[in-house]
Parts: sequence; C-alpha cells; structure tokens
Amino acid sequence: MPPGFQPPKGMRDFLPEEAQKLQQVLDTCRKVFESYGFVPLETPAVESFELLAAKKGLGEAVKDEIYYFQDKAKRELGLRFDLTVPLARIVLNNPNLPKPFKRYAIGKVYRYDNPQNLRWREFWQADVDIVGSASLLADVECLSAVIDVLTALGLEDFMIRVNDRRALDAALRSLGVKNEEVPAVFRSIDKLDKIGLEGVRKELWAKNIDASRIIDYIQISGKNSKALEKMAELVRPEALKGLKELLELAEKSGIDGRIKLDPSLARGFDYYTGIVYEVSIGKVAVSCGGGGRYDDLVRDLGGPAIPATGISLGIDRILATLEEEARIKAVQKTKVFVAAVSDSVRPAAFELAQKFRKAGIACATDVAGRNLSKQLDYSNAVGIPFVVIVGEAELKEKKVRVRDMLRSQEKEMKLSELVEWSRSL
Amino acid sequence: MPPGFQPPKGMRDFLPEEAQKLQQVLDTCRKVFESYGFVPLETPAVESFELLAAKKGLGEAVKDEIYYFQDKAKRELGLRFDLTVPLARIVLNNPNLPKPFKRYAIGKVYRYDNPQNLRWREFWQADVDIVGSASLLADVECLSAVIDVLTALGLEDFMIRVNDRRALDAALRSLGVKNEEVPAVFRSIDKLDKIGLEGVRKELWAKNIDASRIIDYIQISGKNSKALEKMAELVRPEALKGLKELLELAEKSGIDGRIKLDPSLARGFDYYTGIVYEVSIGKVAVSCGGGGRYDDLVRDLGGPAIPATGISLGIDRILATLEEEARIKAVQKTKVFVAAVSDSVRPAAFELAQKFRKAGIACATDVAGRNLSKQLDYSNAVGIPFVVIVGEAELKEKKVRVRDMLRSQEKEMKLSELVEWSRSL
Repeated sequence: MPPGFQPPKGMRDFLPEEAQKLQQVLDTCRKVFESYGFVPLETPAVESFELLAAKKGLGEAVKDEIYYFQDKAKRELGLRFDLTVPLARIVLNNPNLPKPFKRYAIGKVYRYDNPQNLRWREFWQADVDIVGSASLLADVECLSAVIDVLTALGLEDFMIRVNDRRALDAALRSLGVKNEEVPAVFRSIDKLDKIGLEGVRKELWAKNIDASRIIDYIQISGKNSKALEKMAELVRPEALKGLKELLELAEKSGIDGRIKLDPSLARGFDYYTGIVYEVSIGKVAVSCGGGGRYDDLVRDLGGPAIPATGISLGIDRILATLEEEARIKAVQKTKVFVAAVSDSVRPAAFELAQKFRKAGIACATDVAGRNLSKQLDYSNAVGIPFVVIVGEAELKEKKVRVRDMLRSQEKEMKLSELVEWSRSL
Repeated sequence: MPPGFQPPKGMRDFLPEEAQKLQQVLDTCRKVFESYGFVPLETPAVESFELLAAKKGLGEAVKDEIYYFQDKAKRELGLRFDLTVPLARIVLNNPNLPKPFKRYAIGKVYRYDNPQNLRWREFWQADVDIVGSASLLADVECLSAVIDVLTALGLEDFMIRVNDRRALDAALRSLGVKNEEVPAVFRSIDKLDKIGLEGVRKELWAKNIDASRIIDYIQISGKNSKALEKMAELVRPEALKGLKELLELAEKSGIDGRIKLDPSLARGFDYYTGIVYEVSIGKVAVSCGGGGRYDDLVRDLGGPAIPATGISLGIDRILATLEEEARIKAVQKTKVFVAAVSDSVRPAAFELAQKFRKAGIACATDVAGRNLSKQLDYSNAVGIPFVVIVGEAELKEKKVRVRDMLRSQEKEMKLSELVEWSRSL
C-alpha cells in the first residue's frame, strides 16, 4: 500500500471505539464547562500567519513550530497551534462582548513537533478562559472547572501545579542570574520534566551559571504554605503576592487539595505574564494540560490592555491516561437489532425500528439483504445485545421473538409491549 | 487593525450564540445517526496529497481545488475536502472491520472555492456511510437517517433529489451524444442550479451539441412513478433498474414522500458510480448536502472492490436555513448567577454554586471581585434569568434572596430549598 495512505506523520485515526471514548471525554468537558456558565466559541483551524506570529517574542521563528503554508493567492497561513491566540483575535475584533467573557473552546490544534509517545502533530484541546478580569477569582474559576472535569472523568490521582513566573524571575535574580541570562535559564528549567534535574544542572553549567542554589530553589516542595515560606527566603514579597492570594482563594473554594505549588514551573509559551498552571495526572510524566495568565496578549495584538487567564486540557493525553488506568470504555449504544426473517416483513421491521428510535432506543436493521442467520451473526460481531426477530407467522399475531444474545435465550413478546420493554435496556 | 487578524478568506468565526446553534445541529446529527446504529470515526483534517489525489480521475488537478502544502520534510499534504476519502482509507487499512460498516463522521472540511454566499472554504459536514453492502437497503437507511435529522431539526420544506448517473448517461447516448462528449455534457448539466436551464442550453450549444431534447429530458418532473415512465422512453431498462428498486424500497420504508426523482442530477464528485442524492431545503437555491454510491472508491485506492454508499449534510447551509426560517435559537444554558454581597460570603456563594452544578443546573458566580450592583448588571447583560444573592445577614438564617431578573421580583428562600427550586427552572 502506498505510504501516503497512512495518516500524515504524527497524526492518527480514531477508530469507532476510540472515537466514542474521545467523544465521552469531550462531552464531559463541554458539560462541566457549561455548568460554570462558560459559552462556546468556534474558530477556523487555519489562521493568518501574521496572527500566529504575533505571539509575543516569537515572530518568524514560529514557522519552525507550526504548519505554515501559503494559499494560491500567496496569503501566508498556518494551522492554529492553540485555542488561545484565536480567542485573543476574537476579543480584539468584538470589543462589545460582555466582560468578563467566559468562553470554552474544544477543537483540534497542530504543532510541528517531533512525534513521540503522547506527542502528536494533531491533537485535541479543551480550553476555558476568562477575559476581562484581573481578579484571581477568575483563575480559581478556571482551576475549579478543570478539577471538576478530571473528577467527572473518574480520575483520582491528579494535581494542578501552580507557579508565578515573576516568583521564579525574582528568585533567579536573588541568586545573581543576570538580566540577559534569565530567558535561557527559564528555558532550561522548563525542560525539567523532560531532561530531569541532572539535565537542568548540566545545561546551566554549560551556560556558566551556578546551578546548585537554583536547583535547590526549584526543588522546594511540601505543603503549599511551607513551600511558600521557603520561596519567600529568596523571593521578594511583591513577587509572591499573586501566588499567596491564589492559594488563599483556592482554600476558600475548597479546591486547594488539588493545587500544588511548584517553584520550577515555567511553561513554554511566551505569552504568559505571571501565574502559570500545569495539569499532572497519575504516572504520566507528560503534562496533560496547562495555562496561566496572559494579561498582555490582546494588547500585543494591537488592542487595549485586557487581563485574561485560562487553562487548556490536552484531551489525547487525558484519554491515554483514562485508558491506562482502565477508567473508560466504549459503550455499545445500539441496544437492539431488528431482524427481518424475509423480504416481505422488511417494511414491518423498518417500522418497528423507527418506533424504537422515536422512543430513544438506538436500533439497527439489516442493510445488506441477508438471511436471518447472517443477521444474527452480524449482531453478534458488532456486539448488539438484543435481536428482535420479525417473522411472518408471529407478525400476524402481532408478536415478535426477542433474542437475548448474551444469554442465548429467546422469548415471544407482543408488538405492543416492545417499546416499554426497550426502555428497561 | 492588520488584515491578517481577520479569519482567513472564506472562513469564519462562530461567536457564542452562533457556536451554540451550530452545536445544537451537530448534536442532533449525532443523536439521530447513533439511533440507527452508526458508529463514529475521527480522522485528521490533514491527509497526504497522494490520497486526496487518488480520487478517481482527478490526480494533480485536485491541487487547484484544495489547500495543498508541503511540510518541512517536503511531504505533500492537503486539508481534507470531504469525509468520504478518509473513510475509504480507513476501510482499506482495516480489513477486519465488521461489514456492513456503518459509520458517521462529523467534522470540518476544506475547499479552495471562490467564497460567496453560503460557500465557505472551511465548513462542517455530517456524514453517514455504509461500506460493504451492495444492497439499496443501505441507501434507504442513509436516506432515512438524513430525513430524520432534518425532521428533528424542525425543517418542513425539504426533499432529497435522487438520480442515477447511469440513467443520465443512457439518456444522453439515446440522444446521440458521443462517448467522448458525455463528461462535458455532465459538467454542464451539473451546473443547472447555478446557471439555470438557459445557461445549460448555451453551454451545450457552444459545444455543438443539440440541446433541446437534452433539456427536455432533464426537465422531466412530476410524481416519481410518472417521471420514471417518461425517463424510460429514452433510457434502457437496465439503466433505470437501480432507481426503480430504490423508489420501491423507499416506499416500503415510508420515506418516499421526501424522495424526488430528478433526471438532471449529476453531482460533481467523480467517485460516484450510480445512484446520487442531493438534499434541497426550502428556498435555499444551493445544495444542503448530497451523496451517492461509490462502489469503486476503495478499489481505486488499491484495495478490494467494496460497495459503499453515503450522504453528507452541509451543516453550515442547514444552519443558515434554520436561521432564515427562524427555527433555531441559542439557549441560555446558565440559569442562575450566585452573587456575593461581600468578600466574606464568597466561600458560601461558591459552595452554593457547586451544589447547583452537581444538581445539573448551570450556574455562574462573580469572577471579577465586583460589587452586588455590578454583578446584577452583568447577569442582566449576559441574560441569566435568576440571581441568588448571598448576604451575610441572610446567610446566618440559612437563607438567600432570589431575584427573578425578567420580572424584577425578589423573594427570600431557605438554602435547603434552593436545589429543589432550581430543578423547576
């Protein structure tokens, strides 16, 4: 088979069972987000390169990280790499949206990453963001919604790590890191999950930066209040104010049990301005989501200064975790197969199937003109639990046979009882 | 504002109300498709160009009609232009899928068309297809599912036009059109909706083809049985067999009232092999969907001969029609805003909000640290019908005030009664 007949490198198909599980996760996101009063937004998967490159600090270099192309009129375009930049565009173009604007978005995004385990070039994100509130109440709301999503999905072992870039910055300065060295140190620390402490240490040494006290700082852990105290030994109070307030608000909302202070957290995206989040689930070493405050993004696009915050869930990784922990399975939604014994009873079988459907019972019929035994085989193969067999003789008595495929039992039922019976399935 | 900060040409945003209506339509599609036992499939928006070009007959020319680009490793890629070609790839790569394989797919597709009214470069499709059944029962199943979707959406004035390419071909040959002229004549007739009868007549004359009898033939209308008789005057019985059987099966399934024989229907895509469909709704002159049999598609990709049929709904156009006919509106899902009179009662307000959410009531709270009057203004602005006001004094008595924003009425309620009350909203 030609290699081109596989999905593009780093992308993948969801066959029916996988697709159904994906849908379950997306549905849960939507339901929880809507329960908080977030409203949906739907934007194109393609954006102008100008917008994608406007992300603070990156410019042309973004071309290396995204799918970039030109259309036939030489317009520079790219596939969106997140759902936040399109949100900023919407906010910019629609100044009259009531603020705070609480939006959710669920969609596919694209990155020209090196594909590896749990890293794809096309993947699903589910985002909540609040635009137009500088209050950390907005952050707590997003955190709470995300915690509710993960809880609703049945996950138990998860935490949202939080930090403030300003705290990390202040700590590095206290430790004598020079102004111009800070971005490089940030980048090294950001790789902690990937390269480990030793890796960070080596990178810092290579940059001629004294690593030992930095390593001590980013390793601070323990109870949030204790960690905050230890961080305060290096970080001036002003740079810890946000984290302190966030932890207080989280406690008052009862979500503090899921929030873990992590002084090492930096987050790659350049548009974050202060507090940042990262979702860690179970033993999966990779991030299952993240976010933070990006109070300057709309202004950087040429609009007014509008504070904003949000979190993005990495759906593919969450799905992978749910599968690994056996917390999700595809559901057989089709409860009944209506089999026709002969062509003459097909209209009756179809009519009966429509009755089931109208009653909310998903129901299949034969679409291949096959005999009864093959219809039973098919029901078996696709896992439909009950077959209602419509035969000529029974039909005359307004009856059918109902076959329980799992128990291999059959019984006669009146046509008039069927819908009532199906409701119990 | 830089022009690049608009969506790419021919693409568009769905702001919250629009996005919610879109979601309603997609949800209805999914629900109805699943009620027939169709299972979901999710494939990348990007495919290899090799696959996209493998569509019968087109090859390199497909580049003009799609978003074509190369990735950084010079792989030739393109955005998918429909959901059928990816399905064929899946069928090819997964020979063990139980047949008939009944799949639905809902997603965005991309065409480099000239944007105009109701024609976008990114748009939503919702497809049902049955692979592995040559029986026209499969076609009737797809037709029935689509009819149920349109009915469930509240549409009344719609028809599915059907034809058989083999019938049109046979008619043209009876009328003396030469073998090599047939494709060109097909293309002209295919433009009927766009350029009208006179336009078709002119195009045929320009090709030196005697148009008058062709025009007569493609104008045949009236009751399906009558139309079939008239077609039979030109078309040999073998080439009408499929249509005749389809109409019979449709009648037996009670869906014939929505099926209209249309001898002019040709359908642009080259992969159709016989019977073709087109969904026409109300006064909208453009097609809201279509499909047909594509028995050769999997074989053309290098696989075995596997018969297949399906219909695709053009969601954006259906949504536009629903809006034009005022049959859809955005629903305010957030029923309650829990307002906090002061910071001290915020924890109680948050706890109450979580109670509502657990009871299935979507509920917002203040995320901007605003005073009560501004919280009420906000609830008003976003149209939340009830505000539960949490104040210190009332809280001590385990009470709150509940404000009906539409009627501007307020009453006191016990905390313990709130969830029960909210269920009645």
